[in-house]
Amino acid sequence: MKIAILGYGTVGSGVGEIITKQKTQALQGIEIAYILEKTKNLHKSPLMCDDIEKIVNDKSVEVVVETMGGIEPAHSFILKALSAGKHVVSANKAVIAKYLKEFHDCANAHGVKFLYEASCGGGIPWIHNIWNVKRIDEIDEIHGIFNGTSNYILDHMAKEHAPFADVLKRAQDLGYAEKDPSADIDGYDIENKLKISASIAFDCDVLQDFPTFGIRNVRKEDMEYAASMHKTIKLMASAKRKGTHCYAVVEPVLYDLSYMEAAIPENFNLTCLHGTTIGDLKFYGQGAGKLPTAHAVVQDIIDIKEGIIQPTIHPEQSFVYDASLMSAPYMLRTTLTESDVKQILQDAIASVTEYQGLLYVTCKEITTAQMHQYANAICKLDSKAFLARIHQEAV
Amino acid sequence: MKIAILGYGTVGSGVGEIITKQKTQALQGIEIAYILEKTKNLHKSPLMCDDIEKIVNDKSVEVVVETMGGIEPAHSFILKALSAGKHVVSANKAVIAKYLKEFHDCANAHGVKFLYEASCGGGIPWIHNIWNVKRIDEIDEIHGIFNGTSNYILDHMAKEHAPFADVLKRAQDLGYAEKDPSADIDGYDIENKLKISASIAFDCDVLQDFPTFGIRNVRKEDMEYAASMHKTIKLMASAKRKGTHCYAVVEPVLYDLSYMEAAIPENFNLTCLHGTTIGDLKFYGQGAGKLPTAHAVVQDIIDIKEGIIQPTIHPEQSFVYDASLMSAPYMLRTTLTESDVKQILQDAIASVTEYQGLLYVTCKEITTAQMHQYANAICKLDSKAFLARIHQEAV
Repeated sequence: MKIAILGYGTVGSGVGEIITKQKTQALQGIEIAYILEKTKNLHKSPLMCDDIEKIVNDKSVEVVVETMGGIEPAHSFILKALSAGKHVVSANKAVIAKYLKEFHDCANAHGVKFLYEASCGGGIPWIHNIWNVKRIDEIDEIHGIFNGTSNYILDHMAKEHAPFADVLKRAQDLGYAEKDPSADIDGYDIENKLKISASIAFDCDVLQDFPTFGIRNVRKEDMEYAASMHKTIKLMASAKRKGTHCYAVVEPVLYDLSYMEAAIPENFNLTCLHGTTIGDLKFYGQGAGKLPTAHAVVQDIIDIKEGIIQPTIHPEQSFVYDASLMSAPYMLRTTLTESDVKQILQDAIASVTEYQGLLYVTCKEITTAQMHQYANAICKLDSKAFLARIHQEAV
Repeated sequence: MKIAILGYGTVGSGVGEIITKQKTQALQGIEIAYILEKTKNLHKSPLMCDDIEKIVNDKSVEVVVETMGGIEPAHSFILKALSAGKHVVSANKAVIAKYLKEFHDCANAHGVKFLYEASCGGGIPWIHNIWNVKRIDEIDEIHGIFNGTSNYILDHMAKEHAPFADVLKRAQDLGYAEKDPSADIDGYDIENKLKISASIAFDCDVLQDFPTFGIRNVRKEDMEYAASMHKTIKLMASAKRKGTHCYAVVEPVLYDLSYMEAAIPENFNLTCLHGTTIGDLKFYGQGAGKLPTAHAVVQDIIDIKEGIIQPTIHPEQSFVYDASLMSAPYMLRTTLTESDVKQILQDAIASVTEYQGLLYVTCKEITTAQMHQYANAICKLDSKAFLARIHQEAV
């Protein structure tokens, strides 16, 4: 089975490495026919080619692997490949989150597959296992740690009592974080993965206007305050559904140290679901990195080769955002005065504590939507304020 | 696709419930044709039948689901069904651990499938994910919490500072533990699951003469001693391979409280593997229970219906047990005197502490095989002695 790899960066070259070096039976017969690369790189391999038309017009190519990243030209190349009757495997969460419905529709119209295991949770077999659970169950809840960089920062802040900026700098030096770290620390990367995961789990096209609060403002003192209550802070994505209602959020969460979620170290990811008969399932692994992510891409290629049935999603199902589905107590840290905070939060306040000269406000159980509105109002006055949900055991 | 269910206890009736109540597309067309039950139960359903010959001779039955438990007649019924050209799905770890090679050989000889996802880790999609990882990687290590009852006991001992006997009694009252709890607390149940898991992961027939030390002797004081070092005790199954050498063990392990393994609550299971390109993967879920276990059985039935390729194992590969593959520091607790212990452990001793009137000996890194020999020698003098490996981060 001939494949073409579009983009030969970290993940693309990892796919090449796995296909040429690993010697399993399932990989037999998978052959790289083209690698789409910039013109200046063509001398590096006889497989390299800078012409997408040549690739999509070659009838012997059955699978196109998109590992370019970014929105364009990835978006148009994926559509070109699907329209030419080629299966497409992509690791590109940004373009998939934006065009999930269009890609599925195009793949269905041309009788080919569009697979994207590597787009969420890196090497974790997450999407595959969601599909499988859905063969039997309705999934009503998903959550997880979907970003390794932010988990690395929080884990090291907690273990070393180190300030955010110092750990971020180290993550950048190690290559875990980008020079512009906003996608990781402001939660945008997680938004994309949550949108994709929830769309599959709930069988709809989840919109992306759910609230997001990242970890840009998290301070050493916040982690120490959490530790003083035997808790730690994790940046979580969460989505719930009830019938055709759903809600989703990306926000920091205070977990008791005895929880599995609290124990996820370094840049690992954890992805979790709850289904009708299976109950809770959780999956842990490398959420990024060359070979683990490439492994997930190659799993999709093998699924295509073996003709495994992967259901499509039905994004025409109209789900409505329902803020009543998600509520919890919250912690808010600010440099505002207690009376300023009370003007905004009013009845929502359960208690106020001073810790290391900062104001820590605990809010009663409140809808996530309402709390994020309050947090936005507070951030207008104190742009460095920090918000975290206080995890409660599901009843 | 017509199926027959042999045995309609907890798991078998769960399979019936899922097939009749869940309404997914993947379940369409799966029809229960027979339920093999004792003669006295036949009045309960027109599907019930007490004659295995009638079932295996009915050409319209494509899949036989064995949820009887025990060795016989499960063993001979599985062989009868396979020999009659029927796919077999089994949840019965005892019979599979014993006859894994025979069942695979018989299935191969008759061109049918023998699947057993539910036999290890209950509802966790563990075997399926091992197969998938092996499509690309070599797996060199597996470990996990494979028994919910013993994890329930250890978790509640740790959280409530309760004695072993009290928590065991409660587990029995709740139906988690059998009247005769030895399969759970002495590690025999885990031995079966480790043998099955390692045979698939390493692609060989793992023998069952590896060392096992259960939790029958664990005391409140042991858990408190662990807690004083910020650790807890978990009953773990572990297996390693290097080329065609492997080693396996079932034993209590002291984990630092910050570890994911330490955070597995109640009667949940955790199953873990390490592969060439994927690195660490860990799977968490219900290791037992009617619907989660039945869910795993039904996943196998759907795989058969959808024609998914599941590779067979190659139990003809001869692996040798190699004690040099596994070594660690250990903790041993005994009522013997320090000089008695020194006579047995000699140079292996790193330090000796008295805690609540009991002797806690820490041993230097030593092969697991040697340590279990020492522990057996000590148990001959002090039948209540307790052994636990001290977990070390892999380098």
